[in-house]
Amino acid sequence: MTLLSAKKIASVTGGIISGNENTEIQSVAKLNEGDEYSLGFFANPKYEHQVYESRCGIIFIPKDFHPQKKVSGTLIAHENPYFAFCQILSLFFNPNTKRTGIHPQALIDATAEIAEDAYIGPFCHIGAHVKIARGAQIHERVSIGDGCIIGEDATIFSGVTIYSLSQIGNRFTAHAGCVIGSDGFGFAPVNGVYMKIPQVGIVEIEDDVELGANCCIDRATMGKTIIKKGTKLDNLVQIAHNVEVGEHVVIASQTGVAGSTVIGHHCVLGGQVGVAGHLHIAPHNSFGGQAGITGNIKESNQKMTGTPAMDVNAYLRGVVGSQKVSQLQKEIKQLKKEIDTLKSRHE
Amino acid sequence: MTLLSAKKIASVTGGIISGNENTEIQSVAKLNEGDEYSLGFFANPKYEHQVYESRCGIIFIPKDFHPQKKVSGTLIAHENPYFAFCQILSLFFNPNTKRTGIHPQALIDATAEIAEDAYIGPFCHIGAHVKIARGAQIHERVSIGDGCIIGEDATIFSGVTIYSLSQIGNRFTAHAGCVIGSDGFGFAPVNGVYMKIPQVGIVEIEDDVELGANCCIDRATMGKTIIKKGTKLDNLVQIAHNVEVGEHVVIASQTGVAGSTVIGHHCVLGGQVGVAGHLHIAPHNSFGGQAGITGNIKESNQKMTGTPAMDVNAYLRGVVGSQKVSQLQKEIKQLKKEIDTLKSRHE
Amino acid sequence: MTLLSAKKIASVTGGIISGNENTEIQSVAKLNEGDEYSLGFFANPKYEHQVYESRCGIIFIPKDFHPQKKVSGTLIAHENPYFAFCQILSLFFNPNTKRTGIHPQALIDATAEIAEDAYIGPFCHIGAHVKIARGAQIHERVSIGDGCIIGEDATIFSGVTIYSLSQIGNRFTAHAGCVIGSDGFGFAPVNGVYMKIPQVGIVEIEDDVELGANCCIDRATMGKTIIKKGTKLDNLVQIAHNVEVGEHVVIASQTGVAGSTVIGHHCVLGGQVGVAGHLHIAPHNSFGGQAGITGNIKESNQKMTGTPAMDVNAYLRGVVGSQKVSQLQKEIKQLKKEIDTLKSRHE
Repeated sequence: MTLLSAKKIASVTGGIISGNENTEIQSVAKLNEGDEYSLGFFANPKYEHQVYESRCGIIFIPKDFHPQKKVSGTLIAHENPYFAFCQILSLFFNPNTKRTGIHPQALIDATAEIAEDAYIGPFCHIGAHVKIARGAQIHERVSIGDGCIIGEDATIFSGVTIYSLSQIGNRFTAHAGCVIGSDGFGFAPVNGVYMKIPQVGIVEIEDDVELGANCCIDRATMGKTIIKKGTKLDNLVQIAHNVEVGEHVVIASQTGVAGSTVIGHHCVLGGQVGVAGHLHIAPHNSFGGQAGITGNIKESNQKMTGTPAMDVNAYLRGVVGSQKVSQLQKEIKQLKKEIDTLKSRHE
Repeated sequence: MTLLSAKKIASVTGGIISGNENTEIQSVAKLNEGDEYSLGFFANPKYEHQVYESRCGIIFIPKDFHPQKKVSGTLIAHENPYFAFCQILSLFFNPNTKRTGIHPQALIDATAEIAEDAYIGPFCHIGAHVKIARGAQIHERVSIGDGCIIGEDATIFSGVTIYSLSQIGNRFTAHAGCVIGSDGFGFAPVNGVYMKIPQVGIVEIEDDVELGANCCIDRATMGKTIIKKGTKLDNLVQIAHNVEVGEHVVIASQTGVAGSTVIGHHCVLGGQVGVAGHLHIAPHNSFGGQAGITGNIKESNQKMTGTPAMDVNAYLRGVVGSQKVSQLQKEIKQLKKEIDTLKSRHE
Repeated sequence: MTLLSAKKIASVTGGIISGNENTEIQSVAKLNEGDEYSLGFFANPKYEHQVYESRCGIIFIPKDFHPQKKVSGTLIAHENPYFAFCQILSLFFNPNTKRTGIHPQALIDATAEIAEDAYIGPFCHIGAHVKIARGAQIHERVSIGDGCIIGEDATIFSGVTIYSLSQIGNRFTAHAGCVIGSDGFGFAPVNGVYMKIPQVGIVEIEDDVELGANCCIDRATMGKTIIKKGTKLDNLVQIAHNVEVGEHVVIASQTGVAGSTVIGHHCVLGGQVGVAGHLHIAPHNSFGGQAGITGNIKESNQKMTGTPAMDVNAYLRGVVGSQKVSQLQKEIKQLKKEIDTLKSRHE
């Protein structure tokens, strides 16, 4: 990594320097971990003391922040210090450098169309009539089935398998081990034996989607499994056949969505959430880790958890309540006794 | 895809045409999505209106169905329209075409026996003494360890790893990223440190088993981990060492079965179910999503859910009950007051 | 496998033979499954009858065990029969034989340093400045990103992807399909759209760690995601960015740990446990399957389960309690009636 001056950092992010504009950094760090060659940021007022203690060479601070003590590094004031910090990360510290060209040990069908500046790594297998757009980065050991379309600047890490006819948008990222377009889980019982229902639909992924490592997105039985633009999935997430995940949805690790369910835009699903099949989840809802969604969710802007999913406070009330039952039993027993005593006085 | 006539479709499935036997289709679709070149099916009486509105060129209908309005396409009557539709899917729309031969970039041990009409894709690694039966389709980037046996017409998708000595039956399907025969999770604590217990058993998979993407089937400590015939696993399922999954079991995504448990035939496990180790689950039981099975299940034909797993209705009663506890507390408090009042009158 | 005599087995493990020291075995088995060529062990007094019924050629028995009936095989007395048995397994029945050398179809960057006796399989991709120590076994189809360090005698099975700059200790095992160093799940909402927070930290794994198949260990946002020495993970486990898993922790299958959480040494997490982010879990705690840890755990030596995690007995009491609520409702109703009757007598 090269050296980066406060002057450069301020000019790229539109920040205002206070201190030595020639201070240079070569790494990024948390305020309490960095040294004189680190860039840090200060956003949460709770950690103001770290600004004064930090050894970071350069620190992004909020525009309206006025240090009350001495600070050792150069300060750069910005409306959104964390945003500015991320900008610098993206521009200068991105560990994924762009490559171009087709590795001689990639196997590419003669009918595939690969943009000139795309990169295809070794041990890749690119099927017939595949189209890979410009800037795409296909790391080593990736399979892309016949007829797939891969958008501009897509990044597909090692070991990913994309089955035939999948349509992938621009600026897509799939981390290692993802499987896209495998058969939906469709079997019909016929006299105690399961008959396979061929899965002849496809997967469609819109722009700016990211999938974590080892995710599984099944192809539709018929029609499409859809992940809409801007949606982000963590590792080991399962999306079943014919599911539609709306725009700008966030799904944490190990969550599964069963077949044909529609998840509204801007929903947030915690880790290990289970969503049953054939449901509609209204937009802008948030589900806690391990929630089990078993029915349609018609209202928006709810925070739910539990199985079946309910309001978070109701869930916690239920947990507390179930702990009190044995106490209530005792109290009721006592009341019975007292009533019996009262009764006996009347006899 | 080629064109397929009503005449051909009727003859293959044993259906009876009513309308133009020369109508041709080239795709399959839902009734409300297809066009004049689509084959659809009508099975659920609830959707009868779709038969009249559908633009599908050919529609499978139940034998005893008599349309009450005009239908635009050709009808084919069949005892089981969905079954007939699936037959056509399997025969003419299967996206997985069969290949034969060994790709020059597959690495195959000299002692391996590969049937003449099997297919081995590029970047595969086939170990010593492996036997691959006729019709098997080994897609690219598959590892098959020493001494494995792979049955007839098995289909193994990209990126699958099968460890040594695994025995796989006929008509097996493993979707991309599956791992079969990795070490069971066996460690013995010795003075605060975990000692590895070598896993020297194997995995045995009987005929007609299908595994979804990124499933993990561990080898036995000693003896065998067994998946019996006809059983189907969805994506990301975990089967631990020495587990025995019975015949015709269905396991939905992200479910895990711990070591040495026996699951009876024709059980159905929902998604994200957890089954503890060393249990016996009687046949023909059904478990809801996220159920946690912590004890033996001796009766059959139950529908259970919750952790620990109980009757579905009992579980829901418990959820409702726990919500009512604070109300009961109030009522008991009120009763106490009233009793105190009654008592005071006696004093 | 070669033949192994009782004499040899006794000398390697320090056991004492009673019977024919020339008895030879060629496999290992459970007492009730073995034949005259099998080595078995007897440890649990509950199964004493199996010793007398067993056909095993050689049986490890506890030092203080005196058979009450005739035993067909040769006996070897040992302080810890199971430990001795595992020793024999490791030494003579380990299915993973060590190899050396670099396969001609492995792609290795010119700047990588590979120890002379390490093994690199075909279709591997080893990046720039990677260091692989002596004895390491890199199976086929493994990617190791730029700047990674792999310790001595590490075993990395097929299809594993290790992203750049990961630091892996000695005697490491990663089963097939693991992903190490993929991006942490970091996105900041900016006007309803998620902005990627570049993940520029690394993964550090200390000595003697084992990962099951298809595990995911994310790189840190900044700094390190750490798995400390001796820790063992089962299949499909998720470790998020900046997590620190302490020494000698055991984590069963499908468990997930969210970002920045610290898990104390010698904790045991069951299967499908979910741990929320930014928590501290004290050492020596044990969590049941499907537990959901949502707050800091400050005490040690607890057995907890449920969501939120609580004492195991409290959890079960809550489950039982919630089932009794409708009965309590009835009882309260009855008490009300009786009180009303009593009241009416006073009027």
